[in-house]
Amino acid sequence: MPSQPSPQQRFEALSLQLPPAPKPIGVYKPALVVDRFVHLSGHGPLLPDGTLLRGCVGRDLDAEGGKRAARQVGLTMLATLLESLGSLDRVRRVIRVLGMVNCTSDFVKQPFVINGASELIAEIWGPDHGIGVRSAVGVASLPDGMAVEIEAVFELAG
Amino acid sequence: MPSQPSPQQRFEALSLQLPPAPKPIGVYKPALVVDRFVHLSGHGPLLPDGTLLRGCVGRDLDAEGGKRAARQVGLTMLATLLESLGSLDRVRRVIRVLGMVNCTSDFVKQPFVINGASELIAEIWGPDHGIGVRSAVGVASLPDGMAVEIEAVFELAG
Amino acid sequence: MPSQPSPQQRFEALSLQLPPAPKPIGVYKPALVVDRFVHLSGHGPLLPDGTLLRGCVGRDLDAEGGKRAARQVGLTMLATLLESLGSLDRVRRVIRVLGMVNCTSDFVKQPFVINGASELIAEIWGPDHGIGVRSAVGVASLPDGMAVEIEAVFELAG
Repeated sequence: MPSQPSPQQRFEALSLQLPPAPKPIGVYKPALVVDRFVHLSGHGPLLPDGTLLRGCVGRDLDAEGGKRAARQVGLTMLATLLESLGSLDRVRRVIRVLGMVNCTSDFVKQPFVINGASELIAEIWGPDHGIGVRSAVGVASLPDGMAVEIEAVFELAG
Repeated sequence: MPSQPSPQQRFEALSLQLPPAPKPIGVYKPALVVDRFVHLSGHGPLLPDGTLLRGCVGRDLDAEGGKRAARQVGLTMLATLLESLGSLDRVRRVIRVLGMVNCTSDFVKQPFVINGASELIAEIWGPDHGIGVRSAVGVASLPDGMAVEIEAVFELAG
Repeated sequence: MPSQPSPQQRFEALSLQLPPAPKPIGVYKPALVVDRFVHLSGHGPLLPDGTLLRGCVGRDLDAEGGKRAARQVGLTMLATLLESLGSLDRVRRVIRVLGMVNCTSDFVKQPFVINGASELIAEIWGPDHGIGVRSAVGVASLPDGMAVEIEAVFELAG
């Protein structure tokens, strides 16, 4: 019986292009390990060239565009996890995600948008360990006009 | 000396009508147990017929209507706890609540609104274990136009 | 070799004027100790006379005014920590900060604003233990029209 691929192996098989791990744009750390958990600061959709995906969903971006931005936030979080921990195999599972969408007051598909990040995490850690609790909300504005901001907590591997 | 009623006994004495435990509307789990804690995803005000209480507080709903929506979120969270754990006696106390109110930018009574959920939790777990830390904020929009969204962490009983 | 000043000593050397520790304006506790952590409810910018710093950043306050409000939130959190724990030496480090700015939809300098609180925490707990993970977002409205609301988790000293 072949063994399951590990999170790092699944990540490598996807040949994803990651942005650089983000530098803090304020007085905080991108990631902090506390006991068996790694906490991630609010991350934005950083592109490989170092710029941010900006815009208000419902005005500058449609729902699909917002979902692509959330996937880009997921890639940015992977870049931070790799820089902090060295390998995605150091992470056992996702615990919690708070997804904030920069959107108009009549846009109501925040869960669809944040799925862009959640589906990426589920691809890498699988349908049980890759799915945690989540809140998805619409906010009035985000730093530098970024389209989506996500904070998260992951559990480290034993 | 008579013993105190348990949380499950207090819940049953209130004869509350719960909505069905919500199914995820995205890639997340409604509840996740981690160590001695159960984390709940952002919950909305689900009605017994399975529809959501919608509207913007300050425009479609007044403060009292918003508070009723928050109480309905509390009932929805109880439905998730019961489905996940089998009995409210499995929960020792509430730790943390994040209450997000879909409201106009001039509405400022978010604490009054979120009390709708907090008072329900305090009725069931009592004036010490039923009251935790909390943030209450106004947001531009919520999934499917729901009036209130609340995420929470509870501690499990020893 | 002289020993490092402790957080309480650094705090006292700064001769800061603290507001009174805030009373809850709803059904919650300002602080809750759980295991080795102290969780703080969403705090506002309380002034020494007991009133709140109000206003919408980008309309009533500029970025510098918002940053001063966030510093005042930091002082209010210190007042709660002192009332709950007796001394800032009971706190080892900051873990997590969620900073919410009451702002217009075109205001995008939330990290600059929330630095007002983060720099204060870093002054007291130092450049490693005084800096944790953070999210900074703009929200449509906050309780009583306060300019900034911040919730946080700190780790207690061994």
